Amino acid sequence: MAFVTEENLTDLAVERWGSAHDPRTARLLTALVRHLHAFAREVELTEDEWAAAIGWLTATGQACDDKRQEFILASDVLGLSTLVVQLNNRFSKDATPATVLGPFHIDGSPEAAFGHDMSEGIEGTPLYVTGRVTDTDGVPVAGALLDVWQADAEGAYESQLEVDEARLRAKYRTREDGTYCLRTIAPLGYTIPVDGPVGDLVGRTGISPYRPAHIHFLIDEPGYARLITHLFREGADFLATDVVFGTKDALVVSFTEHPAGRAPDGRVCDRPHLRAEYDFVLDRRG
Amino acid sequence: MAFVTEENLTDLAVERWGSAHDPRTARLLTALVRHLHAFAREVELTEDEWAAAIGWLTATGQACDDKRQEFILASDVLGLSTLVVQLNNRFSKDATPATVLGPFHIDGSPEAAFGHDMSEGIEGTPLYVTGRVTDTDGVPVAGALLDVWQADAEGAYESQLEVDEARLRAKYRTREDGTYCLRTIAPLGYTIPVDGPVGDLVGRTGISPYRPAHIHFLIDEPGYARLITHLFREGADFLATDVVFGTKDALVVSFTEHPAGRAPDGRVCDRPHLRAEYDFVLDRRG
Repeated sequence: MAFVTEENLTDLAVERWGSAHDPRTARLLTALVRHLHAFAREVELTEDEWAAAIGWLTATGQACDDKRQEFILASDVLGLSTLVVQLNNRFSKDATPATVLGPFHIDGSPEAAFGHDMSEGIEGTPLYVTGRVTDTDGVPVAGALLDVWQADAEGAYESQLEVDEARLRAKYRTREDGTYCLRTIAPLGYTIPVDGPVGDLVGRTGISPYRPAHIHFLIDEPGYARLITHLFREGADFLATDVVFGTKDALVVSFTEHPAGRAPDGRVCDRPHLRAEYDFVLDRRG
Repeated sequence: MAFVTEENLTDLAVERWGSAHDPRTARLLTALVRHLHAFAREVELTEDEWAAAIGWLTATGQACDDKRQEFILASDVLGLSTLVVQLNNRFSKDATPATVLGPFHIDGSPEAAFGHDMSEGIEGTPLYVTGRVTDTDGVPVAGALLDVWQADAEGAYESQLEVDEARLRAKYRTREDGTYCLRTIAPLGYTIPVDGPVGDLVGRTGISPYRPAHIHFLIDEPGYARLITHLFREGADFLATDVVFGTKDALVVSFTEHPAGRAPDGRVCDRPHLRAEYDFVLDRRG
């Protein structure tokens, strides 16, 4: 009887995990075993390195709580989150591309009127974002809901804070002609949390822990592929080095400066402000 | 400027993690990124599967405490622990092979005399293990310390229990002629803990969660490669399906039955008992 050897071990493990009752689970687990073993064999992982990896994984799990998801952060900085988004959102080339959801989305944001200021009471440079939601033929999507969220000037999202009402998030509905208009403050770049195991890993490299200035959007209309994306400010710092690999060409938009006066929603803005114009193009559901 | 695409993402991530200050860290992290991305691309990991994996990793980290290391268990059942042992302990073919340390070793076990019963007061069939410790030329290693530990009839190791003194563990020193003799109880097979995330995963497959009956040994003598290994009982259940892939041909030993009478340590054993004979062969340090 032949038991385990260095040569047969991977095949044995693949065979064993192939016994998963669900075929998709079997495929995932056998592929995981193959790739995990290939990694260890390729680098000839030492026992100390293995122990360090066990310690890092444990610390990462224990850093998670209801305000923090350190494993998502790990997936983000390794490029895995963006890769999974890519693999699952291969839209036609004319559609707005998807990017990472991130860990800060909150369900159930309040619906806001055309031009509503979702940054009321929060410091920053006023920013109007306007444009249309259309399909890939340019046909407006009327009544589409844009679920919008962003960080404040400290890089903090509402879900990281103790607050009682919606903060820097709202849902805007397009009008009959597909147009939308939202008011907020100009987003700023910020660093991911670096006080945990992920920050420890990033800190051993030359990787910048910053994300470029961006606003999150989620549009989930019947008949169209769900779009989860960002808009990035053109010329912002860290665009090319986004620590979570989120930046895509088609998502970078110019923020233009305007003096106080008539704003895009038809009302008066009593301060100098910024404007960005962007048309979201939804793919038909495949 | 070209930002992230499905095609360039892995190369970008590899380039970025290649900036690790320490060359070995750079090698490990770039290989990790390549294999992780290759896995996700090969199986076309869905967003729901990714989210399930994040949840599983988080639960695994949070299941760890000072008595339990769920990530080591995960590594064990995936065959990674045994693979790392193999890669780091390529002894010459005449030497006793290594197998997994497992999470239950306790430092500082008390030194015991030739023939000492390390199972005193614990139920079970008496077992004497005898033999020699030699080098690969058959030359005895005098004064070598065998650090020995095992589970009780419930599969529990001391480190999982609240006890005040050494339980089913001791250190035995070889005599001038390299011989050793220990008394214990016959080990039994047991199941790994299946009430956590690893058990949940194993439960989705046809994998048996059992380990075959075994005793752990650690011999760390100056001038020789450290040997961490088990002895397995020949004919035991689960030998061919050891859930942690620990069984090796050269580690399976016959337990023979003997009536009450003179025991291998020269004293009288007043009960029927088992005997196993095994010579541990240490490799010269490479």
